[in-house]
Amino acid sequence: MSATTAADNGGHSEQPGRIMAAEMAEQPAVLRRILDRGAPRILETAAAIAGRGPRFVLLTARGTSDNAALYAKYLLEIRLGLPCGLASMSTTTAYGAKPDLTDVLVITVSQSGGSPDLVASTKAARDAGAITVAVTNNPDSPLAAVSECHVDILAGPEKALPATKTYTASLLALYLFVEGLGGGDGAAAQVLPELAEQILARRDEVRGLASRYRFAERMVITSRGYGYPTAKEAALKLMETSYIPALSYSGADLLHGPLAMVDNISPVIAVVTDGHGGEALQPVLDRLRGRGADLFVVGPQRQVEAASAGFVLPTEGVAEEVQPILEILPLQLLAYEITIARGQDPDAPRALAKVTETH
Amino acid sequence: MSATTAADNGGHSEQPGRIMAAEMAEQPAVLRRILDRGAPRILETAAAIAGRGPRFVLLTARGTSDNAALYAKYLLEIRLGLPCGLASMSTTTAYGAKPDLTDVLVITVSQSGGSPDLVASTKAARDAGAITVAVTNNPDSPLAAVSECHVDILAGPEKALPATKTYTASLLALYLFVEGLGGGDGAAAQVLPELAEQILARRDEVRGLASRYRFAERMVITSRGYGYPTAKEAALKLMETSYIPALSYSGADLLHGPLAMVDNISPVIAVVTDGHGGEALQPVLDRLRGRGADLFVVGPQRQVEAASAGFVLPTEGVAEEVQPILEILPLQLLAYEITIARGQDPDAPRALAKVTETH
Repeated sequence: MSATTAADNGGHSEQPGRIMAAEMAEQPAVLRRILDRGAPRILETAAAIAGRGPRFVLLTARGTSDNAALYAKYLLEIRLGLPCGLASMSTTTAYGAKPDLTDVLVITVSQSGGSPDLVASTKAARDAGAITVAVTNNPDSPLAAVSECHVDILAGPEKALPATKTYTASLLALYLFVEGLGGGDGAAAQVLPELAEQILARRDEVRGLASRYRFAERMVITSRGYGYPTAKEAALKLMETSYIPALSYSGADLLHGPLAMVDNISPVIAVVTDGHGGEALQPVLDRLRGRGADLFVVGPQRQVEAASAGFVLPTEGVAEEVQPILEILPLQLLAYEITIARGQDPDAPRALAKVTETH
Repeated sequence: MSATTAADNGGHSEQPGRIMAAEMAEQPAVLRRILDRGAPRILETAAAIAGRGPRFVLLTARGTSDNAALYAKYLLEIRLGLPCGLASMSTTTAYGAKPDLTDVLVITVSQSGGSPDLVASTKAARDAGAITVAVTNNPDSPLAAVSECHVDILAGPEKALPATKTYTASLLALYLFVEGLGGGDGAAAQVLPELAEQILARRDEVRGLASRYRFAERMVITSRGYGYPTAKEAALKLMETSYIPALSYSGADLLHGPLAMVDNISPVIAVVTDGHGGEALQPVLDRLRGRGADLFVVGPQRQVEAASAGFVLPTEGVAEEVQPILEILPLQLLAYEITIARGQDPDAPRALAKVTETH
């Protein structure tokens, strides 16, 4: 993939949001491609690493990829019982920390594989004894080069500045990788391409919902468990495209402070997975309803019916651990439609470059 | 310490902010108490744990304590080279994950020591083979009871709903604990009580600065390295008291997306430590200035002079790793003064209870 920068978009596309819309629409095809062409290689890489018995996992990423890494953290802890941490990169790149990383698996997630601090911290991890895996959209990137193993997310070139298809592609690739580490085959993911197509076809429904938030001055997004990375990614997407300050909290953290900010002028979006995460969120939903909050639910039918508004996800027969790959789709569409409704161009966010050079 | 609830405040204090102001003012005395009376025991506990050679550290906390835990993560990684993670509690409490925690040190930070999910996840960690340490303000709490070791933060009863003195007390106790793990004596902390007193005496200066933000609709707070937990805690404090949506980002993450939200109507607060973290933040500060952002700096003299406004911290001869214990003080005062300026009562945030019962 060639480097894509803000300049390639000419600042504005002729039709606002054309590039982002096209890439959102590609997602079912990308998921199919990963399952058909990527899965065997990913499972094989994972099995080889499993044989070396890593005891602890560190995940390294920034921006949208950081939310994908958080999803992997839940998978690794819940499915495999492996203790995990998200790396604080500056401890290596700014402070020169030299941890002993024997038995540690370091997974670095980056769409471009080009950010210098990710490359530097991954190289440092490998030198410190870690097993290193790069999860990127670019097998020829500097990050893939410094890592021992590479997982290709096969999303094709991403030109829109707000990442969409590389997010869902990273989730699916990470899901298959973690399943492979545990000796599984990731069969639960087979239903995803078809369901993703059905969800993305409901764009008119989301357009109607977007009118609720056109004039919102701030939003709160909450979830628990597997849905929490979705809440964080939805907040990032909303901020990048519409500039609405969107604050994401795990439901439990919301009760420890920021709930003071939620009232009838702060709409709340709750991502309710169909499973243990959704159950753990229930007391938070009850509390929000009790405060008269405007509550928009992305989740199963019964949860949407109990809220002010929502988007029903097809979760019947879908394992909770793969639901995040579907949950984010209506929220990507929502960020897009709110931005269009506010007269802005989702393809031309201010100040963003596609490859962010942080050191 | 007896359990303190919202009811103890009678909803409103006679004089708005009286309770929070009194507790902020206690901080120099609390820091002195920890250094004089707490330190020997904390260092001894740490030395005993060091002898058992933990290889990884997991930190567990919520709300303000989660920001203290993040500070400890930087210390553990930078000072001791120990790989760390912040626990996603729901993996244990909602999903029943059963990780193997041999050689793992689990540090749980909680002011009250009473939150059921913290108690449950700490107990599960101990059963899974972890060395468990509770860092709390209550040696008689359920959390202290289920943990193998206890570090008392000695802050005395905290009645204000926005935590202030227990935050700085947790930071200092964690600093001493980590230094003790590495065989040090924590001497760099000796300067803190005196400097904290000098900073808190500058309340009039902060009152003047607060007028800048009285009508702000949103704020962005950024930092890197040791200052990042301060940015997160300042954002939480602002939201809990004034309800202004305050978004905190590491400087590197800010460039990966949310920068689109920063313009001449989103003021930015930058926490600039005097050391490697501040140096790593420099390109972000330059970029913000280049965008014409309203930039408020908490940091050393030269950094404040290059910004739109700021609060000069006495950092001369203060080790970077203990600067966070000072940096938060003007930001606590700022949250307080903005809230008063907006006609609200910092002692009576909506919807908060002192002991939050999340499961």
